[in-house]
Amino acid sequence: MGIDPGLTRCGLSVVQAGRGRAVLPVAVGVVRTPAGAELAERLKRLSAAVNDWMDDYQPDVVAIERVFERGNVSTVMHTAHAVGVLVLGAAQRDIPVHMYTPSEVKKAVSGNGRADKKQMTTMITRILGLSEPPKPADAADALALAVCHCWRAPLLARTGALLESSTERTRP
Amino acid sequence: MGIDPGLTRCGLSVVQAGRGRAVLPVAVGVVRTPAGAELAERLKRLSAAVNDWMDDYQPDVVAIERVFERGNVSTVMHTAHAVGVLVLGAAQRDIPVHMYTPSEVKKAVSGNGRADKKQMTTMITRILGLSEPPKPADAADALALAVCHCWRAPLLARTGALLESSTERTRP
Repeated sequence: MGIDPGLTRCGLSVVQAGRGRAVLPVAVGVVRTPAGAELAERLKRLSAAVNDWMDDYQPDVVAIERVFERGNVSTVMHTAHAVGVLVLGAAQRDIPVHMYTPSEVKKAVSGNGRADKKQMTTMITRILGLSEPPKPADAADALALAVCHCWRAPLLARTGALLESSTERTRP
Repeated sequence: MGIDPGLTRCGLSVVQAGRGRAVLPVAVGVVRTPAGAELAERLKRLSAAVNDWMDDYQPDVVAIERVFERGNVSTVMHTAHAVGVLVLGAAQRDIPVHMYTPSEVKKAVSGNGRADKKQMTTMITRILGLSEPPKPADAADALALAVCHCWRAPLLARTGALLESSTERTRP
C-alpha cells in the first residue's frame, strides 16, 4: 500500500508485486477532508477512511512519503499530523511502515531524483500498464510510492539479511 | 486535560476548574517512548497511553500545545506526528480540542509571554497549591496548558456567544 499523506487530499494505492519488476495495480483513490472543518474532525475522518482501506485490502506493508519542513508552515504541520494518524493505523494492525523521500521515489521509479510530475505520471502509467494516466496527482504519487517500495524491498531485504548475518558472524 | 506533546516525553495533566480563577490538580504524569524504537511502535504506545488517560478521566476538553517549525527538524516532525495521534484520540471520543502556542500559555499563566521555565514552574506550583514543584518540565508544561485553558475558556465562550449573537442580528 502506498500513501501520499495530506489532510486536504491524501492519495491511497494498493499494488501487487509480481515477478522481477512486474507490479500490478489493485486499487487507487484519494481521501479528502474539508479545509473548513476543525483539525480534530479532519484527522478523525482521514483515520477512519485509511483504516477501512487497510482492513479491506490487508496490505503486507505500507510505504508513505516522508514529510519535510518545506513550503507553507501550516500545510507542512497539517501533513505531519496526518502522517501521525496514518502510521498509527498501520502500527495498530502490525503492518510494517517504510518512509521514502520524494526524491527517493522519483529516483526509484524514473531513474531521475528530479523527475517532474509529467515524467512520473508517464512512468507510472507505463509500469502498471494503465489504459490512462492516474488522476489526480495525489493518486499517481501514491502509486509511485507503492512501486518504489516493491522495487526497493528486495534490496532492503538483502541488506537486512547481510547485516544480520554479519552480526551473527561477529558474535563471540 | 492538558497535553505537552512529544514522542520521547509527553506531559499529561488533568485539572478541575473551580470558582473564579481556582484550579484544582487531579492528575499529572509523563508518557515516554523509547528513542531507539520505530516511529510506528512509538506512536502506537503513545496513543494507547493517552487513550487510557482519556477513558479514565473523561475530560470535558483537551488543551494541547501548538507545534512550530523551530529547532531540530526531526524532533519537530516527531512531535507533529505525536500531535496527530493525540488529537485523533480526543476526536474519536468527541472531546473538543484547543491549541495554544507556548507564549499564549506563558502569558495566561504568568502574565509574561516570555516567562522562563523557573517562573512558570513557580506560578503553576502556587496556582494549584502543590506542596512541591511538578517534575519533570513536561509535567509542569502539561499543567500550565490545562490552567491556561481554564482561564481562557470563559473568555472564549463569551467571544463565541457575542459572535453568534452579532451574526443573528445581521441576518435579514
